Amino acid sequence: MPELRKDPIIGRWIIISTERGKRPTDFIVEKNHAKGGFCPLCPGNENTTPPEVLSYSHSSGHQPNKPGWEVRVVPNKYPALVIEGDLNKEGEGLYDKMNGIGAHEVIIETPDHQESFTHLPPERMVKVFWAFRDRLTDLSNDPRFRYVMIFKNYGAAAGASLEHSHSQLIALPILPRMIKSELDGSLSYYKYKERCIFCDIIRQELNHNQRVITQNELFLALVPYAPRSPFEMWILPKKHASSYLSMNNEEFRLLSEIFSECMKRLDNCIPNVPYNFVLHGAPLRSPALEHYHWHFEVMPKLTMIAGFEWGSGFYINPIAPEEAAKYLRKAKV
Amino acid sequence: MPELRKDPIIGRWIIISTERGKRPTDFIVEKNHAKGGFCPLCPGNENTTPPEVLSYSHSSGHQPNKPGWEVRVVPNKYPALVIEGDLNKEGEGLYDKMNGIGAHEVIIETPDHQESFTHLPPERMVKVFWAFRDRLTDLSNDPRFRYVMIFKNYGAAAGASLEHSHSQLIALPILPRMIKSELDGSLSYYKYKERCIFCDIIRQELNHNQRVITQNELFLALVPYAPRSPFEMWILPKKHASSYLSMNNEEFRLLSEIFSECMKRLDNCIPNVPYNFVLHGAPLRSPALEHYHWHFEVMPKLTMIAGFEWGSGFYINPIAPEEAAKYLRKAKV
Repeated sequence: MPELRKDPIIGRWIIISTERGKRPTDFIVEKNHAKGGFCPLCPGNENTTPPEVLSYSHSSGHQPNKPGWEVRVVPNKYPALVIEGDLNKEGEGLYDKMNGIGAHEVIIETPDHQESFTHLPPERMVKVFWAFRDRLTDLSNDPRFRYVMIFKNYGAAAGASLEHSHSQLIALPILPRMIKSELDGSLSYYKYKERCIFCDIIRQELNHNQRVITQNELFLALVPYAPRSPFEMWILPKKHASSYLSMNNEEFRLLSEIFSECMKRLDNCIPNVPYNFVLHGAPLRSPALEHYHWHFEVMPKLTMIAGFEWGSGFYINPIAPEEAAKYLRKAKV
Repeated sequence: MPELRKDPIIGRWIIISTERGKRPTDFIVEKNHAKGGFCPLCPGNENTTPPEVLSYSHSSGHQPNKPGWEVRVVPNKYPALVIEGDLNKEGEGLYDKMNGIGAHEVIIETPDHQESFTHLPPERMVKVFWAFRDRLTDLSNDPRFRYVMIFKNYGAAAGASLEHSHSQLIALPILPRMIKSELDGSLSYYKYKERCIFCDIIRQELNHNQRVITQNELFLALVPYAPRSPFEMWILPKKHASSYLSMNNEEFRLLSEIFSECMKRLDNCIPNVPYNFVLHGAPLRSPALEHYHWHFEVMPKLTMIAGFEWGSGFYINPIAPEEAAKYLRKAKV
């Protein structure tokens, strides 16, 4: 059984997931993509993954765990957390831990092994965003979970171990430190100003227009003021909303349009760059929050630079966000 | 002039250092080590670095910026921050920034291009630790600086861009978020318990003896309870002290002995593993703090795993710290 453990000094939770690797020798060689080899995410290989928890298909007669799907969600075969069991919280002297209850799922974004997320047409990309919504909604019903982290690793440098285009979710019985920091920070701003800090950022960015990448009726894409990495992009709803689940169908359509456009702009600036994106939203079952604003953060992974950060505990970004935004605006779509 | 910018939501400062890279195309190919090529850190090439700010030599007649040194400290030729200028703090609407005043130095740990830090004998490694002390002491006199981050990146995967063994320091006009979190967390523990949390950790670890790697009269090396990466190691003084500058010569000797032993144990478990270490200490010119405890954190860099973290914002560690400690204890020195 995996374990969740808390660093007693700074309150950071980590997962000890011993199913994933065991002896020091397992770590010596960095694993490479199995290019061209067998792909468990391809149509026809449905029986090599755990049974699907969701799939969308063009045809109404589509059978579960059979080819014909457009987007498919399956439990991770090597989950970092496990779904069965009660949540037990325990102390160990001054330390805190709980057993590793959670969900770890894989969202297969396309049946086509060669197709990348970046090049999905918006009308297909939107189904990936629907899948995020549907899984979030379903997992919200499990009272053991407090947060669902939805993210994508693209490229080996960004942590992807499978080539076939996919994103992941991890349902957690705790709030990740990153989200807790945002909730705390935005709440203290709200207490001081009685305004959402993200709404203020959106207003200021639209006025100054230096870091805006693009926008549509409902969404704004920008390079943040203090980006950790070159070409970092945030995509935010212009209208205040703390939860991803607040969107209607038309909003989903506009989200996938702007997301698709941003990914193409990024790819045009740095072809095939490895990247991660993470969905930041309110905790599960949270009432609508006046101070918090859901959004996506997209981080290109330029290892040379990330190594520096990891080492120094400090981000050094060699390109000003105003410059990055200029390049992204100029890029062809 | 580089710039320091603060993320308005979570208060993370980052450096925008535009001297380091400019166009998107600069980022496409990950730079490799210049193996076998010209090395600016080798003896004989002293004139290719900025003039040294410190060097130690066996011979008393050693001339600055000439061969014959054992450890040499020079300003970074491509600094992330610059040393000249006044510190100007400014707002930009709701954002905060300051100009990028700071120091960025390289500590050349050995004259021998082939020699690694791990294999320095303790009586030579100690001089690297002296260099950290001497530079910390010197930079403390500059009232513009609040913190000096001392760290080492070993191996390309851990962010090193030069092969010749070296560590780095960055003097900052702000407190890095990582240190601020530790200061805040340990202070709130102190307010509650009236004890240093690190001292409590040391006591508990020595009692349970599950995560201890090794110890000597003055220092303890352990795998932390909630490690971010496999084989993470912390080295702490057993006696309470908040500043690295509190050590006497004998204590430095014992530090280099345990550090050298730990590095050899790690190398024995995972030969030539890329790693980072970071010195965590009290802010510059801080009075002795009852609640904070200086220490080193050593993080092996296993990219496959780190990628996952970067992506998800969450650390997943595939080996329990008790297991890692067992391997490290068993490893030959």
